[in-house]
Amino acid sequence: MCAKLAEILQGIQPSNKEWGQKAKEYLNNLATPPGSLGELLALAEQLAAIKETLKPSVKNKMVIVMAGDHGVVEEGVSAFPQEVTPQMVANFVKGGASINVLSEVVGAKVVVVDMGVAVDLTDFIEKGSVLPYKIDYGTKNMTQEPAMTREQAEKALLAGIEVVSKMIQEKGAELIATGDMGIGNTTPSSAIVSVMTGKTVAEVTGRGTGVDDKGLENKIRAIEKAVKINKPDPKDALDVLSKVGGYEIAGIAGVILGAAYHKVPVVVDGFISTAGALIAKGLNPNVVDYMIASHKSVEVGHQHMWQELGLNPILDLKFRLGEGTGAAMAMNVVEAAAQVINKVLTFEDAGVSKDA
Amino acid sequence: MCAKLAEILQGIQPSNKEWGQKAKEYLNNLATPPGSLGELLALAEQLAAIKETLKPSVKNKMVIVMAGDHGVVEEGVSAFPQEVTPQMVANFVKGGASINVLSEVVGAKVVVVDMGVAVDLTDFIEKGSVLPYKIDYGTKNMTQEPAMTREQAEKALLAGIEVVSKMIQEKGAELIATGDMGIGNTTPSSAIVSVMTGKTVAEVTGRGTGVDDKGLENKIRAIEKAVKINKPDPKDALDVLSKVGGYEIAGIAGVILGAAYHKVPVVVDGFISTAGALIAKGLNPNVVDYMIASHKSVEVGHQHMWQELGLNPILDLKFRLGEGTGAAMAMNVVEAAAQVINKVLTFEDAGVSKDA
Repeated sequence: MCAKLAEILQGIQPSNKEWGQKAKEYLNNLATPPGSLGELLALAEQLAAIKETLKPSVKNKMVIVMAGDHGVVEEGVSAFPQEVTPQMVANFVKGGASINVLSEVVGAKVVVVDMGVAVDLTDFIEKGSVLPYKIDYGTKNMTQEPAMTREQAEKALLAGIEVVSKMIQEKGAELIATGDMGIGNTTPSSAIVSVMTGKTVAEVTGRGTGVDDKGLENKIRAIEKAVKINKPDPKDALDVLSKVGGYEIAGIAGVILGAAYHKVPVVVDGFISTAGALIAKGLNPNVVDYMIASHKSVEVGHQHMWQELGLNPILDLKFRLGEGTGAAMAMNVVEAAAQVINKVLTFEDAGVSKDA
Repeated sequence: MCAKLAEILQGIQPSNKEWGQKAKEYLNNLATPPGSLGELLALAEQLAAIKETLKPSVKNKMVIVMAGDHGVVEEGVSAFPQEVTPQMVANFVKGGASINVLSEVVGAKVVVVDMGVAVDLTDFIEKGSVLPYKIDYGTKNMTQEPAMTREQAEKALLAGIEVVSKMIQEKGAELIATGDMGIGNTTPSSAIVSVMTGKTVAEVTGRGTGVDDKGLENKIRAIEKAVKINKPDPKDALDVLSKVGGYEIAGIAGVILGAAYHKVPVVVDGFISTAGALIAKGLNPNVVDYMIASHKSVEVGHQHMWQELGLNPILDLKFRLGEGTGAAMAMNVVEAAAQVINKVLTFEDAGVSKDA
């Protein structure tokens, strides 16, 4: 592993549980029946532990959407053609996609990154509307060979780390959400969750954007073949990422690692983002302290990912879209948690009698 | 029934399902895999059916918090003393309560109404910070006699209708949420759900703000006694409301009826608000078309209420607080649904290829 990546990984510390405990005690004195704000209390404790304060701030929310293509689409694993990846990137830039609209609702900015789209995005990159971190023109077909080299995987992780570090250091981002775009990317994500959890491919593979029964069978066979040929080592997350991963998935893992390194909470989106989260955890388990599980996707296998991470998703809106849409929605809940600990008065300050 | 109430009830029409169908077709052409935005799509269809447009607007969001006291607290059914009702009203006015903070997060205004607090709130009423609709100084002890007269119940329903009508007509509210404050009010709410659904009192009675095992047993006995003595008729919602209800519950039912009358969607909060929703449905089943089920409360019995209404709650944040807190959180999801149908581009407009 290159020295820079090793240094970042070593720099990721657990969050500060003493601040979490202080927050728990403080929240117990808010003028509400103890525990009555449910999930918001646990989130507020997590924010306090991450940011080491009882007044955590989540300003300058940013959704980082990582885009990349997948050689495995040659196997007919997706309901949509590969050209949709750059078309959707164009839609993100135009502001007309679901992630743009939902981010606006929760007051978050959308940042789009080319991690490995199969075509050049010159115009957008020149205008600064897409960040240029292309590692390659899509991954290789993982049913034939590794999706990428180990060096490319490291480079992609570092790209994600660099992007999120800039957002935090230069733009003051205090809450990050992950997002993805990449036709075919539920296929490597299912491969990752199967390898990392030991579940069979069939247990963790769903219809993605909507393949039919025959397509689903074909997709499962392709993933099984990719795993069989490449033999990814579940104890070596870089090996898994390079053999059956994707560039946007690597970028997402990098974003999560970088956010944790800078002690900034990161809201993890759906099936593809959570595959990235599994890779990040494989590289340093401390990152889980900084993750917020946004939602439960309709895509089968997502629940196994959350279980593996030991996290409970906040929302269940029956999404199966990606882009960061579930994470964007959850950002509002995270902001609510932050505001609760910042602003709700205690029994004493509110002049409210406690229970007997 | 007085003529004014009868006129409002007769004026509540079903929402326009043709617009719901048009919305469904339109949403199928958004540049996303069909159905991938899950619950937001069903909500967008509902908004379109209510507002008879493909561009529904949910501006000027308002949370109406109804406050009232309960004679049944004499039976020791609550963990908190009755003085907490006006203390929390003061906290709402001060802006330091959970509902204030969460409403701010979602951009909603909080309106506080005295429906039946046991003390005078003269100062707040003179300053205009609490709306004066007090029907009485708390209900009677329903284990001894009816909680209120049938005339008082009608008056309280009309008060709720008047408040919401003013918000809609004078303040331009396009999305309403219900909220409640009233020490002891899970007790009448459990009575209402038991009577209206036929479930036993024990099945639908929980710990409210936190009574212990002995307190819970005592609470169940008090509700059973109230039902036995008053014999509320489940086919006559006014009878149920007057015998085992509460003034804030009546006010909430009125808000829901008034919103439906004006074709404005209303987000129904937790256990107490949903008791109000059951009363509203009993008075005119068409109102259900205008209801949005905000969240699943920890309070047992809440799920039976949603089932009786035929609604699925959007959120499960493990709240058990009331005040409108769950409804406030759900308002953000409703806004997201409105923005999706307003702003997400279609395949054609976005220049994105459809699936094969």
